[in-house]
Amino acid sequence: MSGPKGGKRLAPGDTIGILGGGQLGRMLALAAAPLGLKAHIYCPDRASPAFDVSAARTVAAYDDEAALAEFADAVDAITYEFENVPAPTAAFLARHRPVRPGPDVLDIAQDRLAEKAYLAEAGLPVADHVAIDGLGDLETAVASLGAPAILKTRRLGYDGKGQAVIRSAGDCAGAWEAVGGAPSILEGFVVFDCEISVIAARGIDGATATYDPARNTHRDGILDTSVVPARAGTEVERRARALATTLLERLDYVGVLGIEFFVAGDRLIANEIAPRVHNSGHWTIEACQVSQFEQHMRAVAGWPLGSAERHHDAVMTNLIGADAESWQDILARPAASLHLYGKTEIRAGRKMGHTTALAPKTGG
Amino acid sequence: MSGPKGGKRLAPGDTIGILGGGQLGRMLALAAAPLGLKAHIYCPDRASPAFDVSAARTVAAYDDEAALAEFADAVDAITYEFENVPAPTAAFLARHRPVRPGPDVLDIAQDRLAEKAYLAEAGLPVADHVAIDGLGDLETAVASLGAPAILKTRRLGYDGKGQAVIRSAGDCAGAWEAVGGAPSILEGFVVFDCEISVIAARGIDGATATYDPARNTHRDGILDTSVVPARAGTEVERRARALATTLLERLDYVGVLGIEFFVAGDRLIANEIAPRVHNSGHWTIEACQVSQFEQHMRAVAGWPLGSAERHHDAVMTNLIGADAESWQDILARPAASLHLYGKTEIRAGRKMGHTTALAPKTGG
Repeated sequence: MSGPKGGKRLAPGDTIGILGGGQLGRMLALAAAPLGLKAHIYCPDRASPAFDVSAARTVAAYDDEAALAEFADAVDAITYEFENVPAPTAAFLARHRPVRPGPDVLDIAQDRLAEKAYLAEAGLPVADHVAIDGLGDLETAVASLGAPAILKTRRLGYDGKGQAVIRSAGDCAGAWEAVGGAPSILEGFVVFDCEISVIAARGIDGATATYDPARNTHRDGILDTSVVPARAGTEVERRARALATTLLERLDYVGVLGIEFFVAGDRLIANEIAPRVHNSGHWTIEACQVSQFEQHMRAVAGWPLGSAERHHDAVMTNLIGADAESWQDILARPAASLHLYGKTEIRAGRKMGHTTALAPKTGG
Repeated sequence: MSGPKGGKRLAPGDTIGILGGGQLGRMLALAAAPLGLKAHIYCPDRASPAFDVSAARTVAAYDDEAALAEFADAVDAITYEFENVPAPTAAFLARHRPVRPGPDVLDIAQDRLAEKAYLAEAGLPVADHVAIDGLGDLETAVASLGAPAILKTRRLGYDGKGQAVIRSAGDCAGAWEAVGGAPSILEGFVVFDCEISVIAARGIDGATATYDPARNTHRDGILDTSVVPARAGTEVERRARALATTLLERLDYVGVLGIEFFVAGDRLIANEIAPRVHNSGHWTIEACQVSQFEQHMRAVAGWPLGSAERHHDAVMTNLIGADAESWQDILARPAASLHLYGKTEIRAGRKMGHTTALAPKTGG
């Protein structure tokens, strides 16, 4: 990083490089354009949805240093749409151009154990957990934490992948096999009333903004709906936003971050952070003055954050797999917005799009 | 056209071809993406702003039949961002793919005399006017219509270009020279209280939708601000919307159309139509459920229209020439949205962007 309150500020006509060409990269590119910023997408996948709306594209592997160098030369600042950017890639790029959020946050977000430790140190309550490096560790941990518990790989897990539920000590061997014997953590089962998430942003000037928390529901381990207002209680929501802000400041963060909390009574347990725009913030496109995507582009450009104020209630529903076939029904609903991601092939479990339904704003 | 209530319906993944690569094409492409539609821009100008957000681009002249044929093959339906598409271009393309709105409306919109005649025949009041083919015609017409009056070329006029004000009979020769001796019309001066415009849309199923009228002000002959609600009177605004709908139906129109009216007391005088999305409708991006750009893409795709309902009051202000240098001030205003068009060079009189300020919705 280039020191407190510092860093390069872009100007209209400049280019933001985005690692990753999925729907988040696509929606970032769509938000960059009205600001007069160009998007240059870097993705190994030739069929990346974000390519259709970006000024420039690079199809190359994340460890192709010649392609990375050329990409860095062509852009003015760099961000990413996914937290599993390889650490050497981020480090290489950061030697040439500002990478926002900074690469150090990737080390935390890529490892569930490091993430839990960081969150706990920052004063955010987390679930009980134990590092697991072998079946023996797992059996000991289940004996001490109790069942049910969840075994999760430390790295490369998302949308319920790389996870196994342990309902009794007898499940240990099967669970260890299910995660492929990879370094993991065992988390105590959290009995919660609901899950909420906070989308929070911080600019290079240190200013922060948080969106109203959303209440999330899942289906088959994948986000299904995000509803605002979350109606998780004024005080709980205030604390969730404050914790998100604390985290941004401690990380000296630049950009948008998503953080999920379990709510149990009036307790909050931080579950997971994502150093990027987040699926549970898609409702901000229609329901807020400035969407999470524009907010992130402003921060990455070194520009002031915009207003995160919400002017509508909203329900965002993911279109997973064959759900996308309902596009005609969605078009016919007066208060619904359709977002298709331009993916050519419908596959089970694949995020094909989302829809946001608006209603007049009510209280929190 | 392919008969009443008929015509091809596109599916997500299909491509809409857009003739013209300026800011309107750019905002159409940005609106196509969330619908899962790709945009293919055709424009002779290599530096077209719309290229930065489109899946495909063709740089070729509008009379390059080989390029047009290849373009038609690559797309599923065709529209345009400007009304001066050469008639042979539109006719050529229409033999290969649906062109929406239909090419016949171009004949009307490209010729001020034909436009006035069509509007009058459709029952829309227009200003007194006379066709002018020579200085003699002009002198006779000024004698009969009286001064002041405005001489306008029949073709290729926009943003106050190709016009000359005649304040007395002595101005005739100068005015005739100012319009280059081109076939023109002389219009009687309309004394009006304000100008309003209606953005109206019609789908291939014949359904129509109109947005709340905007009140427009101009600076140096170029649109400066559009304000909604227009506060031109409930009955006047109702009639303006009804006249726009009449026109769409009579034209068997598919897509979005902008129509400007002078308001004089409780009288409406139709001034000009634009068979496309319109500068005075940019406020719909933030203030309506479905923007004029999405509405047009829906219609061109053969999809149902969306809700034109307005949920905020809005003031749209164009950023002309050096106005665009105020982008930092605009970013700092909590209720303002910035739209820059990605034009590299600031020139006097050039539309560089716009900004929309929102306020809670009040009545009409």
